[in-house]
Amino acid sequence: MNIKPLGDRVVIKKLEAEEKTKSGIVLPGTAKEQPQMAEVLAVGPGGMVDGKEVKMELKVGDKVIFSKYSGTEVKLDGEEVTIVRQNDVLAIVE
Amino acid sequence: MNIKPLGDRVVIKKLEAEEKTKSGIVLPGTAKEQPQMAEVLAVGPGGMVDGKEVKMELKVGDKVIFSKYSGTEVKLDGEEVTIVRQNDVLAIVE
Amino acid sequence: MNIKPLGDRVVIKKLEAEEKTKSGIVLPGTAKEQPQMAEVLAVGPGGMVDGKEVKMELKVGDKVIFSKYSGTEVKLDGEEVTIVRQNDVLAIVE
Amino acid sequence: MNIKPLGDRVVIKKLEAEEKTKSGIVLPGTAKEQPQMAEVLAVGPGGMVDGKEVKMELKVGDKVIFSKYSGTEVKLDGEEVTIVRQNDVLAIVE
Amino acid sequence: MNIKPLGDRVVIKKLEAEEKTKSGIVLPGTAKEQPQMAEVLAVGPGGMVDGKEVKMELKVGDKVIFSKYSGTEVKLDGEEVTIVRQNDVLAIVE
Amino acid sequence: MNIKPLGDRVVIKKLEAEEKTKSGIVLPGTAKEQPQMAEVLAVGPGGMVDGKEVKMELKVGDKVIFSKYSGTEVKLDGEEVTIVRQNDVLAIVE
Amino acid sequence: MNIKPLGDRVVIKKLEAEEKTKSGIVLPGTAKEQPQMAEVLAVGPGGMVDGKEVKMELKVGDKVIFSKYSGTEVKLDGEEVTIVRQNDVLAIVE
Repeated sequence: MNIKPLGDRVVIKKLEAEEKTKSGIVLPGTAKEQPQMAEVLAVGPGGMVDGKEVKMELKVGDKVIFSKYSGTEVKLDGEEVTIVRQNDVLAIVE
Repeated sequence: MNIKPLGDRVVIKKLEAEEKTKSGIVLPGTAKEQPQMAEVLAVGPGGMVDGKEVKMELKVGDKVIFSKYSGTEVKLDGEEVTIVRQNDVLAIVE
Repeated sequence: MNIKPLGDRVVIKKLEAEEKTKSGIVLPGTAKEQPQMAEVLAVGPGGMVDGKEVKMELKVGDKVIFSKYSGTEVKLDGEEVTIVRQNDVLAIVE
Repeated sequence: MNIKPLGDRVVIKKLEAEEKTKSGIVLPGTAKEQPQMAEVLAVGPGGMVDGKEVKMELKVGDKVIFSKYSGTEVKLDGEEVTIVRQNDVLAIVE
Repeated sequence: MNIKPLGDRVVIKKLEAEEKTKSGIVLPGTAKEQPQMAEVLAVGPGGMVDGKEVKMELKVGDKVIFSKYSGTEVKLDGEEVTIVRQNDVLAIVE
Repeated sequence: MNIKPLGDRVVIKKLEAEEKTKSGIVLPGTAKEQPQMAEVLAVGPGGMVDGKEVKMELKVGDKVIFSKYSGTEVKLDGEEVTIVRQNDVLAIVE
Repeated sequence: MNIKPLGDRVVIKKLEAEEKTKSGIVLPGTAKEQPQMAEVLAVGPGGMVDGKEVKMELKVGDKVIFSKYSGTEVKLDGEEVTIVRQNDVLAIVE
């Protein structure tokens, strides 16, 4: 089963605490916006979104930091994923 | 009887629980935005909408995830459908 | 007496319950946005509206679905009509 | 004494109940937006307004329907007039 | 001492009741937006304001109607003046 | 130590009461927006700000009137300065 | 481990009180917007952000003043950093 996000949306899968420890990022529980690490599973086509040209900077496999409360959670083939707009992704971590 | 959505709107029909199970998507009841699966029945022409050029990415027959609370419900020939803007559709599922 | 809506406005006349039954559309009383069927009586010229180019997609005689609470009601030669912006019209029904 | 509205504004004078009866328009007291008939006394130049090109569609002498609560009331040479933006005028009645 | 308003701002001086009577405009105390007459003392250069091209339509000496609560009051050489954006001026009175 | 404001920002230093008296401007304590006199210490480069072209009209040494509550106060080498956007400056006084 | 901010975002690291004293900036505790000094660690690519062309004015190593409450805090390799949009940075200090 395949999911193709529309416009400037991306599908991401949250990374577990273990992985976060490995990658060295610990996210403080008190942070107002609750950033969280995730991996990009699918990337929308970009193009004209709300009448503005959007170029997708993310690609599948990117590890990203995004704001925990943005996006919509969907269970896909038993796996919980989140659909967010690219603009809600703060940074790529390498 | 035929329905032609205006602008960037699409007419969608919600998929029943059975179909959702078959397609492997289960939508959590606690999700804030309440995403839901649906099938696209009709697609507006796009073009200039609110002064912005909109290209329709959806086509009739697409299975989509959309936010449950978006759009307007209408009963058409006894069948309940929803009219939403393309931008309220999050992703296509294949 | 004649009414010429300005900009992207259209004048519509709500269709009675009988007509709605004939056309096969029943609108649920619980719908949040209260869609309603109407017939288009007059169409504005479109053009630059709020600095955006608007092309009128509606024409006189179209049967449309619009959101009941949008627009302004006016009694014209004893007949109650509603003036709405084209963007508040959701779809054309044929 | 002469009044020249700026930008996309027009000066209008509300029509009395008598005239409304003659023209066949009766405006329901329960209408949320309280539309009202008026005659156009002066029309602004249009042009760039808020950075958008506005073309004036109204001309002096037009009978119009506008939303009662829009605009600013001014007493001019003992006569009460209202200054509204063209966009607050819903339709021309002929 | 000289004051040069920036952008699309103008400096105006409120006209006293006497002058208002002479010019024939009486402003009702119950008006929601409290329009008021004033004379233009200085006019900004216009040009790009908030990224929009603004052409100044007012000139020094114009008698104008503006909304009383718009702008900022400043005492200049003992004389109270108001700095408003041109868009807050409703009309020129001649 | 040197401060370079970004975008359309300027660094200003509030003028003391004495100077205000000399320049003849007295600012009423009851003014809603609390305008205040200041001298410009540094001017940002302007250019594209929020996607809009901004041309800087202010230069170092200008005496300006700005709204007291706009901007951010910073102590720079023991001297309190304020960083405001050019658009929050109402006028230049000469 | 490396962090690459997206769009017009920059990653900054707050400067300690000691450093602030050395650089001569003391930030008042009562300031409404709570400005704070920081050093730039990483700069996004800029380009089209929200449909607007953004040119990055900041570079790695810049000492900047930013509003304390803007941005999202993330712990990166044990070090607390903040991701902010360039527009939330008020000035560069040299």
